[in-house]
Amino acid sequence: KITELILNRTNKSKPLIGKQVVVTAGPTRERIDPVRYVSNFSSGKMGFAMAKAAAELGANVTLVAGPVGLATPPGVTRIDVESAAEMLEAVEKRFSTTDLLIKTAAVADYKPKHPADQKVKKQQGDTSLEMERTTDILATMGAAKTHQIIIGFAAETNDVEAYADAKRQKKNADYIIANDVTQPGVGFGTDTNKVVMFSSEGKVDFPMLAKDQLATELLQHIVKQEGWHS
Amino acid sequence: KITELILNRTNKSKPLIGKQVVVTAGPTRERIDPVRYVSNFSSGKMGFAMAKAAAELGANVTLVAGPVGLATPPGVTRIDVESAAEMLEAVEKRFSTTDLLIKTAAVADYKPKHPADQKVKKQQGDTSLEMERTTDILATMGAAKTHQIIIGFAAETNDVEAYADAKRQKKNADYIIANDVTQPGVGFGTDTNKVVMFSSEGKVDFPMLAKDQLATELLQHIVKQEGWHS
Repeated sequence: KITELILNRTNKSKPLIGKQVVVTAGPTRERIDPVRYVSNFSSGKMGFAMAKAAAELGANVTLVAGPVGLATPPGVTRIDVESAAEMLEAVEKRFSTTDLLIKTAAVADYKPKHPADQKVKKQQGDTSLEMERTTDILATMGAAKTHQIIIGFAAETNDVEAYADAKRQKKNADYIIANDVTQPGVGFGTDTNKVVMFSSEGKVDFPMLAKDQLATELLQHIVKQEGWHS
Repeated sequence: KITELILNRTNKSKPLIGKQVVVTAGPTRERIDPVRYVSNFSSGKMGFAMAKAAAELGANVTLVAGPVGLATPPGVTRIDVESAAEMLEAVEKRFSTTDLLIKTAAVADYKPKHPADQKVKKQQGDTSLEMERTTDILATMGAAKTHQIIIGFAAETNDVEAYADAKRQKKNADYIIANDVTQPGVGFGTDTNKVVMFSSEGKVDFPMLAKDQLATELLQHIVKQEGWHS
């Protein structure tokens, strides 16, 4: 009887058992030449927290990580990538068997159009770096969606809510989790985060929380909304 | 007598006692907007090794470090900076009292000309990032030199030796330590390095060594050439 109780409790707290979850995390780096690149300040902490929380909730988690110096959460399969193109490839390859795609990574929107094979020597005066768009992973996966639930993140510095819900609809995502990275304690590099979640059922505000705790709260909310807690 | 012997040996192995050494290390980051930047693959390992070796040889060491996740060597004063401009400022401020400036950092040659206050929203199609030159720290300090000994590093991907000695003369550096970062085990991110040192007395080849060991060998060579071992 005690065993049964424990098993019940264990199953109850693991509503993602049997689910294939893919989490992207961190920045990407887009090379200018063999030594230089364009990147962003994503620390990967929120993505690693989402991967950890999903694994704790019972999911089979693959973490597709850009270049960050973070330890892989226990029980999570990690795939390290560098560029937006490599990240897209890793996500696409697993997409048909993915149940929940959590796109936490801050993927570069632009990459150098003509990356050089040799280190570019500096010249006198100004220069100009030609950039082209990377493939939008969220939009690509949103368009390819069959049964997958897709969660996107939006890090904004202004008009956060307006951008975020427009992003959700435009990209065919199920959830967009938005934060204003200009607020203290929010976003890139911090250990805490304060977000607003948008879905077809409207907007939910979450309080300022440690990223680990916030990740669990977000997933538990999604589990409930998707009717996954059996 | 035994005490005397030990003291002698200790002093002999600390030829940089009384010297003020400033080491720059790591990459710099030049902001495009609040979340995006241009940087390079410098790991900071060679610079941190130089700082550690200089401290072990008795110097009073200040390490001006770009954004890297490395531990500060024992006894070293660390100043963290982000951009080329901040690194220059930290070096200039200490220059009048510096005896030996070791410029290991891979400082950005260019920075975005018009960094944005808000995250730049992506647009359809290509774009172009206007870049302007940063101030050349090595050349600036070379021009300002009074009594200081200046060591520059050159990470090249082609024609290493030709570029390196030209760099030494043009920038009024005393030593240029050059490596070919395209070789396996050499340069950015590796734990080993293989370099050639250029000075007014010609060229010295060093074997492939662990960065810590190489740093000590390089400094011992410089100590000898400068007549600092009393």
